[in-house]
This record gives sequence, structure tokens and C-alpha cells, in this order.
Amino acid sequence: MPSNDDRRPRLTPAVADTRRAVRESLAGLDEGSLVLVALSGGPDSLALAAATAFEGPRAGMRVGGVVVDHALQEGSAEIAETAAQQARDLGLDPVLVRRVTVDGHGGPEAAARQARYAALLKARAEVDAAAVLLGHTLDDQAETVLIGLARGSGPESLWGMHPAIGFLRRPFLTVRRADTKAACGDQGLEPWNDPHNHDDRFLRARIRDRVLPILDQELGGGVVEALTRTADQLREDAEALAHFAQEQIGDLVEHAEGGLSLHAGALASNPPALRQRIIRLAVQSEFHTSLTRQQTLEVSRLVTDWHGQGPIHLPGIRVAREGSLLLFTAA
Amino acid sequence: MPSNDDRRPRLTPAVADTRRAVRESLAGLDEGSLVLVALSGGPDSLALAAATAFEGPRAGMRVGGVVVDHALQEGSAEIAETAAQQARDLGLDPVLVRRVTVDGHGGPEAAARQARYAALLKARAEVDAAAVLLGHTLDDQAETVLIGLARGSGPESLWGMHPAIGFLRRPFLTVRRADTKAACGDQGLEPWNDPHNHDDRFLRARIRDRVLPILDQELGGGVVEALTRTADQLREDAEALAHFAQEQIGDLVEHAEGGLSLHAGALASNPPALRQRIIRLAVQSEFHTSLTRQQTLEVSRLVTDWHGQGPIHLPGIRVAREGSLLLFTAA
Repeated sequence: MPSNDDRRPRLTPAVADTRRAVRESLAGLDEGSLVLVALSGGPDSLALAAATAFEGPRAGMRVGGVVVDHALQEGSAEIAETAAQQARDLGLDPVLVRRVTVDGHGGPEAAARQARYAALLKARAEVDAAAVLLGHTLDDQAETVLIGLARGSGPESLWGMHPAIGFLRRPFLTVRRADTKAACGDQGLEPWNDPHNHDDRFLRARIRDRVLPILDQELGGGVVEALTRTADQLREDAEALAHFAQEQIGDLVEHAEGGLSLHAGALASNPPALRQRIIRLAVQSEFHTSLTRQQTLEVSRLVTDWHGQGPIHLPGIRVAREGSLLLFTAA
Repeated sequence: MPSNDDRRPRLTPAVADTRRAVRESLAGLDEGSLVLVALSGGPDSLALAAATAFEGPRAGMRVGGVVVDHALQEGSAEIAETAAQQARDLGLDPVLVRRVTVDGHGGPEAAARQARYAALLKARAEVDAAAVLLGHTLDDQAETVLIGLARGSGPESLWGMHPAIGFLRRPFLTVRRADTKAACGDQGLEPWNDPHNHDDRFLRARIRDRVLPILDQELGGGVVEALTRTADQLREDAEALAHFAQEQIGDLVEHAEGGLSLHAGALASNPPALRQRIIRLAVQSEFHTSLTRQQTLEVSRLVTDWHGQGPIHLPGIRVAREGSLLLFTAA
């Protein structure tokens, strides 16, 4: 075997893949923009920092980094500082470190996520960055879809994470986790391995370590790709239905004193999936409340199964059928 | 404990649940009809036969049975005859036994399924039954959804089985498998346990025995219900999109010599999910061919990414952009 200087970055397939993914994700951002890479020090975000450090300047952009210290593990400040130093060594500038307080509200994973996104978006505003890049991979996406499916919290929970939403971009949603690890190795980068990623107190870690491998084995492989392919199509379907709901709602809604009304006849002529979306959208826009599926179906019956029944009382909202109208008022 | 004659049917919760499910499923069928229960001798279909034997006459219907002998296991003829005798003992009349040949085309499970459904529908026609009742449970539904998801074969594969389609009805899609077993025990019925149900050569058996229990355990329970709840909503969404595709296609399609054309501008103004459905529907109706997602997306690019490219050649179909039209012709 020819000898090789292992510290010199090599353009291996994994490195090329991560760079291509970043290049495609940066397309559409203005030249001269600053983009921030969100770093944890793990292989996904370290590979993302390296690829963005390479591609950003070639697209005329400045590249910075932001490390969120969740202060949940011993030594987290040192881990954050190490990640920040790695980012600086890759040429990222500025590199911000933000320590947050996770209050545990809504479960440890949700609370950490909420604190993290708030800190990232605040950091973005401070330095006026055009985007924050996140290191989520195809494997993360598959885990998200499987969790959503198994919880049964509705089609929305199956969409997975969006590749570009608001200021957030996720260039690696088409890249396998193993390739981000390989890209780190190929570039002489030493990622930190977060023990929480395999801590079985966390649902995602259990899905990652116990459920997906077995599903993949029993189905003969390809499950991660299959889950994400399904999510892509479901997101498309949902976007189409949201489009039609949005299109119709203007004609159906009338604002009334202390609420709004919907035309029952027009609602009735729509297929159930659209009728339910219109009802949810109307309530959301007027009362800033998300109806559950059960509540939506209950309201729906005032349209499809009308036999003179009385009003429905939802939290803060009264829904009554009055003639050809469905009347929503604050209660 | 009070002594009990265990051979006497008891109206336990499981028996009540199975009867209620059958009662709801029979609603809408004409009085005087004959309904056929499809029996394997397993707990699901035996509980179904018992519940239908009870509910059918109360709804003014005659109840018969049909047993399909797949001839795939040693002693299958005896197993079929035992199931038929159990059905006769429950009062079903007529009870037909049909031996089929499974040719293995498309994999052993698909081939057996195809032979079974063909035999069931043929038997239905012979005795002019109004419906064939199948014993699929909520657990079967969850397995179907999980298999569809993990294969990534598109949203359609996630709908699961339909509770009532054509002549087929599935009263137990809301009933847990464990309850059908309990209902058999409570009524002194001894089901046959098909070793194929736990034979790990079969994908469904592996999903049942290895994947679902682990998923359920890791997610803290409720996975079977969650999977089927998701399937219900996805089916609703898909039905709505099919409705809109059907509604639009009349305005968009023009029949041409040897094919049809679609208006590119109108297609372009639709959200992707609907555009793709309209393309698939048009091809299906004219050429009796189902396009894959990849093929559909390729055709779609002649609408959304038109820059003068040449025609696309699909198996048996040529698709070309000509001015404002998308022209499909037999090739």
C-alpha cells in the first residue's frame, strides 16, 4: 500500500458527497451572505462545518459557526469550547458559543430542542446571518418519521424535517450518518461522540439503536431510504391539501362578532380530509388554537351529520350550527 | 369461585366486541342476503364465523362460509375440513371448501393471497352472496402499514386494508387479535394455529414477532393503534387528492389520435402532488399502465422544467411536449 499523510484532507467519496450536499443547499442564498453552521462537535455537524468551510467561500459567502452548550452533561462547557476551536481551525469566523438553560418542560428532548433552536435563531439575528445550517442526516430523518408514525400523531408528524424552512437549512438530509463519520475521518477531524446519542433514556436513541436496525434487518435493508422517501411524498400530499384549504377558506369564512362563521353547504361538498383542514385552519387563524383530530371530527359532524344537535364546547371556543352556517365564537 | 360450564358460550367483553364489529359491518347489506365468512380455522376467522352466525340472522341475513385450502402444508385438506366442520357446527350454511394452486408468482405470500382472493370471489359469485367477510384484525392492519412504510412504496402502501371494498368486508379491523382469541376461548371454540403465522421465512411473520413488539416496547405501548390511526388519516388524504385529480382531469384531457394530450399550463398551476396524480390517472385510463414515481416525475419535468428537451420514452408510451400540450402516444 502506498503511504499517505493521513492529516492531509483527501477528496474521498464521503467528502465529495458532503460538499455537494452543502453546495446545493447554499444555492439561492445571496453572495456576500454570512451563513452559520450549528455545531455540537459530533460527526454530523463537524463534517458540515468542514464542507461549508470549503464550499461557502467558493459561493462568495462567509461562514461562521454557533455552538450551543446545553449545560446538561458534566464538562459540557469544555466540549462546546473544543467544537468552537475545531470550527475556528476550519476557518469559520465568527464562532459563537451560547450557553442555554433547559427547563425540562415537555420532556427532556423537546426542552433541549426548544432551547437550542431559540439560541440558534437569536445568534443568527445578532450577526445578521442569512441562514443557520443544521447537520441532520438521512438517518435522523428516518428516525423522526418512524417516531411520528409510531406515535400516530397524524400525517404531519410523518413529514420529517424540512430541508429549508425559514432561516434553517439542513443540507445533509440526503446524506447517510456513516458518510459524515467517514468524511470526518478522511479529513483528519476528530468528532466528539455524545453519549446521549446512545443513552436509552431517550426515545430517539432507542429508535436508533434498537428499532431501526431490527426493522432494516427483517426487511432486508433499505429501510432508512424507504422511510424518508415515504416522508417526501406525504409532505407533498399535505402541501397540496394545505394549498386547497387555503384557496377555499377565503370564500367560506365570514367574520362575525366575537368569532367567525363557515358555510356548511360548501364545507359538506368537500372531501373529509379537506373539510377537516378548512375547519382547523379557520380555528387556528381566529383563535390561535390547534384542534385535535377528535375535536375536528366532532365539529365536522355538525356539517355531515346534522340533526339539530346542540353546540359543541371546545376549550375557549363554542361551535354551533345556525341554519346554513357553522358559527365559532369565543367562550 | 362459582363453577361454570365452559362449553356454554358466555357473553364476555371479547364476544360482545366481535359481535358489535360484525353488526356494524353488516349494516347496509340487504335483508335476505347471504353473506360468506372466509375461514382459515385460525382464531380470527373462527371468531368471525361465530359472531356472524349470531348477528347475521338477527339482521335478517343468511350466513355461509368458504374455506380456501392453499395446499401448501402437509395435512392442509384435513385442516380445511376441520374449519368447514366448525363452521357447520356454528350453523353456517352453505360451507364451501375450495382447493387452489399457488404458483409462487411474485413471492410466496403474494401468490397465496392472489389465489385466495380469486377463490373467495369465485365462490361468492357461485352462491350469489352479497359479501365475503374477512377476519383481518387491527394487528394485521398495523403490520400492513409498517410493511408499506418500511418498503417506501408510496403513500398508497400506507393506507392499509379497506374495511369495505367491492364484495369484501373486514369487520375486525377495529378488533385486536388477542380479543379474537379470547372470543374463541369464551365460546368454547378451538382454533387452529397456522405455523406459517410465526414462520420467519415470511416477512409478515417477522414483522409480527420481532419488529412490532420491540417498537411497541421502546415507544411505551400503543403502537398498533397509532399505526392504524395514521393509516386512516392517510387514506382520507389520498381520497381527497384522488377526488381533485378526478375532478380536474375532465377539463385537462383531450383525446388525440393514438393517445391523449394534457394542457401543460393547467397542470403547472397545480401543486406537485395533484399534478403527479393527474398524469398517473391519465396514463392509467388511456394505456392501462401504472407509472412509477420516478417516471411520473420525469414526465412532470416536461411541464415544470421545460427548456425544449426531447420526448420521454416509457414502456409502450411516448411523452412529448408540443407547444402548450403534453402529448402521450402509444409507442
